[in-house]
Amino acid sequence: MASVPPASFSLEARVQALLDVEVALAEALAAAGLIPATSVAPIRDAARATHYDVAALGAAAADAGNLLLPLLAAMRHRLAVVAPDAADHVHWGATSQDVIDTAMVRQARAAAAPILAALTRAADAAADLAARHAATPIAGRTWLQQATPTTFGAKAAGWALGLDRARGRLDVATDALGDLQLGGATGTLSAFGDAGTAVAAAMAARLGLRVPDLPWHTERSRVADLACALGLVCGALGKVGRDLTLLAQTEVAEVAEAAAPGRGGSSAMPHKRNPVAAVRAVAAALQAPGLVATMLAAMAQEHERAAGGWQAEWDTLPMLLALADDAAAALAEALPALAVDVARMRVNLDAAGGVARAEGLVAALAPRLGATSARTAVEHACRRAIADGRPLADVAAADPRIAAQLDAAAIAAAIDPVRLAAPAAARVRRALARRADLEDAPHG
Amino acid sequence: MASVPPASFSLEARVQALLDVEVALAEALAAAGLIPATSVAPIRDAARATHYDVAALGAAAADAGNLLLPLLAAMRHRLAVVAPDAADHVHWGATSQDVIDTAMVRQARAAAAPILAALTRAADAAADLAARHAATPIAGRTWLQQATPTTFGAKAAGWALGLDRARGRLDVATDALGDLQLGGATGTLSAFGDAGTAVAAAMAARLGLRVPDLPWHTERSRVADLACALGLVCGALGKVGRDLTLLAQTEVAEVAEAAAPGRGGSSAMPHKRNPVAAVRAVAAALQAPGLVATMLAAMAQEHERAAGGWQAEWDTLPMLLALADDAAAALAEALPALAVDVARMRVNLDAAGGVARAEGLVAALAPRLGATSARTAVEHACRRAIADGRPLADVAAADPRIAAQLDAAAIAAAIDPVRLAAPAAARVRRALARRADLEDAPHG
Amino acid sequence: MASVPPASFSLEARVQALLDVEVALAEALAAAGLIPATSVAPIRDAARATHYDVAALGAAAADAGNLLLPLLAAMRHRLAVVAPDAADHVHWGATSQDVIDTAMVRQARAAAAPILAALTRAADAAADLAARHAATPIAGRTWLQQATPTTFGAKAAGWALGLDRARGRLDVATDALGDLQLGGATGTLSAFGDAGTAVAAAMAARLGLRVPDLPWHTERSRVADLACALGLVCGALGKVGRDLTLLAQTEVAEVAEAAAPGRGGSSAMPHKRNPVAAVRAVAAALQAPGLVATMLAAMAQEHERAAGGWQAEWDTLPMLLALADDAAAALAEALPALAVDVARMRVNLDAAGGVARAEGLVAALAPRLGATSARTAVEHACRRAIADGRPLADVAAADPRIAAQLDAAAIAAAIDPVRLAAPAAARVRRALARRADLEDAPHG
Amino acid sequence: MASVPPASFSLEARVQALLDVEVALAEALAAAGLIPATSVAPIRDAARATHYDVAALGAAAADAGNLLLPLLAAMRHRLAVVAPDAADHVHWGATSQDVIDTAMVRQARAAAAPILAALTRAADAAADLAARHAATPIAGRTWLQQATPTTFGAKAAGWALGLDRARGRLDVATDALGDLQLGGATGTLSAFGDAGTAVAAAMAARLGLRVPDLPWHTERSRVADLACALGLVCGALGKVGRDLTLLAQTEVAEVAEAAAPGRGGSSAMPHKRNPVAAVRAVAAALQAPGLVATMLAAMAQEHERAAGGWQAEWDTLPMLLALADDAAAALAEALPALAVDVARMRVNLDAAGGVARAEGLVAALAPRLGATSARTAVEHACRRAIADGRPLADVAAADPRIAAQLDAAAIAAAIDPVRLAAPAAARVRRALARRADLEDAPHG
Repeated sequence: MASVPPASFSLEARVQALLDVEVALAEALAAAGLIPATSVAPIRDAARATHYDVAALGAAAADAGNLLLPLLAAMRHRLAVVAPDAADHVHWGATSQDVIDTAMVRQARAAAAPILAALTRAADAAADLAARHAATPIAGRTWLQQATPTTFGAKAAGWALGLDRARGRLDVATDALGDLQLGGATGTLSAFGDAGTAVAAAMAARLGLRVPDLPWHTERSRVADLACALGLVCGALGKVGRDLTLLAQTEVAEVAEAAAPGRGGSSAMPHKRNPVAAVRAVAAALQAPGLVATMLAAMAQEHERAAGGWQAEWDTLPMLLALADDAAAALAEALPALAVDVARMRVNLDAAGGVARAEGLVAALAPRLGATSARTAVEHACRRAIADGRPLADVAAADPRIAAQLDAAAIAAAIDPVRLAAPAAARVRRALARRADLEDAPHG
Repeated sequence: MASVPPASFSLEARVQALLDVEVALAEALAAAGLIPATSVAPIRDAARATHYDVAALGAAAADAGNLLLPLLAAMRHRLAVVAPDAADHVHWGATSQDVIDTAMVRQARAAAAPILAALTRAADAAADLAARHAATPIAGRTWLQQATPTTFGAKAAGWALGLDRARGRLDVATDALGDLQLGGATGTLSAFGDAGTAVAAAMAARLGLRVPDLPWHTERSRVADLACALGLVCGALGKVGRDLTLLAQTEVAEVAEAAAPGRGGSSAMPHKRNPVAAVRAVAAALQAPGLVATMLAAMAQEHERAAGGWQAEWDTLPMLLALADDAAAALAEALPALAVDVARMRVNLDAAGGVARAEGLVAALAPRLGATSARTAVEHACRRAIADGRPLADVAAADPRIAAQLDAAAIAAAIDPVRLAAPAAARVRRALARRADLEDAPHG
Repeated sequence: MASVPPASFSLEARVQALLDVEVALAEALAAAGLIPATSVAPIRDAARATHYDVAALGAAAADAGNLLLPLLAAMRHRLAVVAPDAADHVHWGATSQDVIDTAMVRQARAAAAPILAALTRAADAAADLAARHAATPIAGRTWLQQATPTTFGAKAAGWALGLDRARGRLDVATDALGDLQLGGATGTLSAFGDAGTAVAAAMAARLGLRVPDLPWHTERSRVADLACALGLVCGALGKVGRDLTLLAQTEVAEVAEAAAPGRGGSSAMPHKRNPVAAVRAVAAALQAPGLVATMLAAMAQEHERAAGGWQAEWDTLPMLLALADDAAAALAEALPALAVDVARMRVNLDAAGGVARAEGLVAALAPRLGATSARTAVEHACRRAIADGRPLADVAAADPRIAAQLDAAAIAAAIDPVRLAAPAAARVRRALARRADLEDAPHG
Repeated sequence: MASVPPASFSLEARVQALLDVEVALAEALAAAGLIPATSVAPIRDAARATHYDVAALGAAAADAGNLLLPLLAAMRHRLAVVAPDAADHVHWGATSQDVIDTAMVRQARAAAAPILAALTRAADAAADLAARHAATPIAGRTWLQQATPTTFGAKAAGWALGLDRARGRLDVATDALGDLQLGGATGTLSAFGDAGTAVAAAMAARLGLRVPDLPWHTERSRVADLACALGLVCGALGKVGRDLTLLAQTEVAEVAEAAAPGRGGSSAMPHKRNPVAAVRAVAAALQAPGLVATMLAAMAQEHERAAGGWQAEWDTLPMLLALADDAAAALAEALPALAVDVARMRVNLDAAGGVARAEGLVAALAPRLGATSARTAVEHACRRAIADGRPLADVAAADPRIAAQLDAAAIAAAIDPVRLAAPAAARVRRALARRADLEDAPHG
């Protein structure tokens, strides 16, 4: 559903990002005395995307091999009239990839910021649900079958911690990406003579980046790792989205996304409230893995600059950013507004006679009958409850093996979902307290 | 390098394709008497993308869940003024996916046509190279090491046949995709009462599509198979592109793409002629596999209509089409203009003393010395030729074990690349003749 | 869950398959007079996997670069004692890849046979369910929400046709794979002199394969296409598996896999019946896309024989075959034994007041109120039915706008699921009749 | 080429790892008083893989749903004879996934250790090459074309730093994986009553793991992140492998892997020395991305325990570990023994008249002619050098525009590769010094 690239990767934004890097390079070159200071102002003036026919540049990129080459031609053409010397000084000593990679770094970091913020909002909303529902019983489900009771808070706390971890990974990867790319044709900085280090430092400072020990034209772990982090982000969001779609099923109906105008509804189905935000997350999680695979496959880049691998990154990383952005924004909006039907959660726990709570009965009987006999007795009662469509409590009370050990009250207590879920509630509260501590810490 | 979707999948084209399907549906409904004939003309008039704020529709799509819902709202809003009844009759009985899938089918088929044409041009150009160079000796290379001689024609014929096979697969998959999607909310055609079959037939006829036995809302083999075919197309093109980049290496220099203005060249490297077309093919081949994986992963779509899988297709299939289009167009342009340096191919066969032709010497000696002894003797000569930097022919002539069996002329004949490559030349000519026969056949 | 490769790709089977190809080569060489007929028998005797330390060969493969090289060494070592001449004649004129690819073709075709058979069984079982339940009402579900009624037969028919299409693709791809690989070091057949064609024909005939126009050492569309077909097979099976897990949910409970000893069940959950077969299919569908991506990524193989791409296929294709085999076998066993709870399907149609049948009410009211007013009135009734927990029929009968048009009987008829699903039932029966016709046809 | 899983994931090792976890659980349960202390010894005695028919357990796993269920049945069967009470106490309170995940964690960490060690060896070997060849001129290559000179040390330093980064990521991910899995059926620890925390702590301590805040049955970021790290490792190794295969090409011949018996060589090609280790790395890098995609796709796991996603991890993670292990081991062995042909690097710099060094000439002329004129003049000279097959130095000296500015000595100096590569040499030495500092630091 992310049919447009993130704003920071629109064609206009790509062009402007390239121009910004050329300006920083020119300033750094002038500071180092490699080009005249008088060339900087004309270059800065020419460095506005609005000066250029951006669509035409985009169309010329394929034949040229990249977007920068036609842009430089246009820029020099413009400068040739007003400041012929400056035309010679644009892009001096750099290679296309220096500028394209550095621009990409800045665009990717700009695109990551709202994703990080949305992840925080989504995780906080999940943590808030967890706090409010720490002890709210819900059927725990494994293999999509009701298993034993847990609490809705435990489920939501799992979402929160998963989103926290994904956010942490993205934060680290985004930070690690912040290295200037500057090396010239084959990464040697040779065009700058002795001034290479100084030019790189000045340029990096202007752009808010670090100077790496070596150029990374074909050492792509930085971008590949960002892709992996985005894949993990989409995966964590997809987990939440998948759960939401399942919980929102008509037959389960334990949660619902807030209704919104224009969403769901049709002449055929006036009643429907589609889990649109959750599906956006699921769809992103389906698309991200293949794109991450592309970024990893592109890592084996040849020699000093690649013949294919680098080019394969250009559309792939923006698409990953767009997917993570869309999915994170969707859940950051949906989770705080989620309708939670606590009563329905209790009703569902009675499905199939409430056999999902049979664990409690086994536990109560085991000390008296031994684990194997307890299990056999309860399994028998469960089968009968399902077959006869009767509550497990009633069947158990009528079963002589069980009734000899537990009266009706004891049976009811044994399978009371609040009691069964109590350890989960305690664990959730501890986990949330630890989470709050981490957030309060300096680098939370 | 395909930073824009193919023309048939631009936002404008997507909107128009949806509108075209709505028109066909309205016509079919009117023909079946389900809506008044008077509603058709207003609907047809309203079905022009230029009537609508396409960008706004695109922006509304994420929240709505798809692009059609805001488009229908805008269309009905427009009709409400001029033909209120018709507003009720738009999209009557259909579900969003009916229209979106049917439009996608038509867009994908439109996008496939130029890919098929470019593949034909590229394959024909490769076949032409094969015919011209059927007997041109070139070093055969395995593990990126020179092995035994083959011919450049054999290499080019391999490209041609690979492109032919890929084209054939794409042709089949494109044809198989041509099924109307029409089923209503859950695929039952129930809104049309008894007229469902007639409506579907009329609509399909108008759109140039077939009526499938069942709706395929969540049976995605048609689109997934098209994706696979595109993956194979990119793979076949990537094989050619990879070979071209390797053959064009400065140290090999056996082929070169035609020079073009704006390509390669920089202040640092005025001499470079980058294999831009080949790299476009390689880059496409790097990106396609992950996108195919997405399309396959999206196949497990839930129940009657999906919660995520369908949505994951929307940007993925157009991107695959764009990549295949870009790569096919690049090689369709580059292969006919390829510069082939036959002399350099011969020079390279002398690399490392010409030991790549040692097979011929083993073959000549084997009947006399036995295979193992022949091999041992030649291996020894090869090692010495490489170590001393001398031609294998000279070393062999100076080796008593070999000289006892073969004189200098016999040695030269044994390792003559034209002779060694003769079987390859014959095979290439047969393969090309068979290819020409297939093309002349009715469904070539 | 396919932690072992398919039988035809066990290490023992790999070794034997290689040996079988060496025998066919020796026989063809002898028939062409290229090696003495007396060498064939010793080679045939030596061509038994049981003669060799298979594990040691496997361990040596990594360093050697492939499994055949150490096997040939062992084979020659064995022959050196009993038939020294024959040791020279083993593998004569061929390259490792000739033998490894040809063996792989035969193993893959052997591995595909049971998959094709299982797909037939699974599709037939789905078609049988479809026939029996063509008119059995079930909630149609979109976005995992109940939408409008369909029939369980329509769902099962969709499964059947999806499996049929996947089976058809696998059949085509398996057949297309049946080409001998023989070319010698760089594909020229040069070692065989004029006899190359005859040797290839004789060898292919012995092995039940065709002779291709050119060797396909680095033209990998045959194997990549088989991989795609297996990906489509896993996708089609995954669709069925996904639906089964959803239908088997405790809260839905419309189908269940047959119980089996050792499946599901634990001290905590004596009541559970896990959908193990369905999950095997889902798990396979999750794993196949990445493996298909690998096979496609491996297509860009260098020159005459590859440096990495070919090697990447060796474990990937067997794993795909194993996954498809496991998933197909699981569903071929589960579908015929599927427990279908028709009564529960009807009960679920009453979920949320039965609003999933509201389409019928809109259709009945539209001719009287106009589509928009009808929709508004029904939407209102649906909201109230959900809010009050009352049946939609009751709410509608109490709504003056609706009651003015339809009496209680008309309302009941309008939302009768059998009536609503009737078009689906008819369509299913037609689709199954067409399917039966196709099966009866010669190449069904 | 990794046709066997890593040792820690053989079927035997899987079984033993499961048994080890059951022992730790039993000890923890006994310490908490939940099972009698007398049950521990019999359980410990029964926890030896050698007691069981491992192959039969493997065969039973598919039907059972996992490997642990048949193992537990076998274990209880064994215990029933010698210690019937203990049979009841095995696996008490845990769910299959608790044991399988915890075992997987320990196996994966065991499998990661040799990979980390091999990465260190490979990176150190690359750093050693970088130190020795910091100033050794080599043609820098972009788009597989010679561009401007760099040094072999710069190339090798890039390898070292790439391997370092990959190693660092794997180290972090392996450490982050070290969390116990224990939650019982739905992650609530409910079976342990108040003792859940104590049991988890005791069990974790015994197994060398941490206790996480919440169970992570369906929060798979730990395993998915390990997969990503392995993908990055394979990518970094693949980059080195790709470069090695290119540098080892017959026509380039700047490096060669050490010869080894049984490697390369055939009757047809006695001269070949295949880059087997490099190709193992390339092949791993081709396979890893698809497997990483699988692990990411598997993250959207349902509810408390999954229906397919978890199962999809079982073979995928071991395969990734095996690939990384094979590739790292291959390069750790190959890089220290790499043959480096410094003379050939100089010879190759003269390819195509030495135009790859034209940058120096542009730089020397630019201050005198202006950048544009300098570039035009040199470009002209380069074209002539290539066309005439003459050294650029000679052509330049004969060109009046150039000769007017620079004499022959100045021209020679301008394109002296040692001078041109000097900035690269300095940068390499700084990078290596920083690397050494990091290694000396506490957490190097």
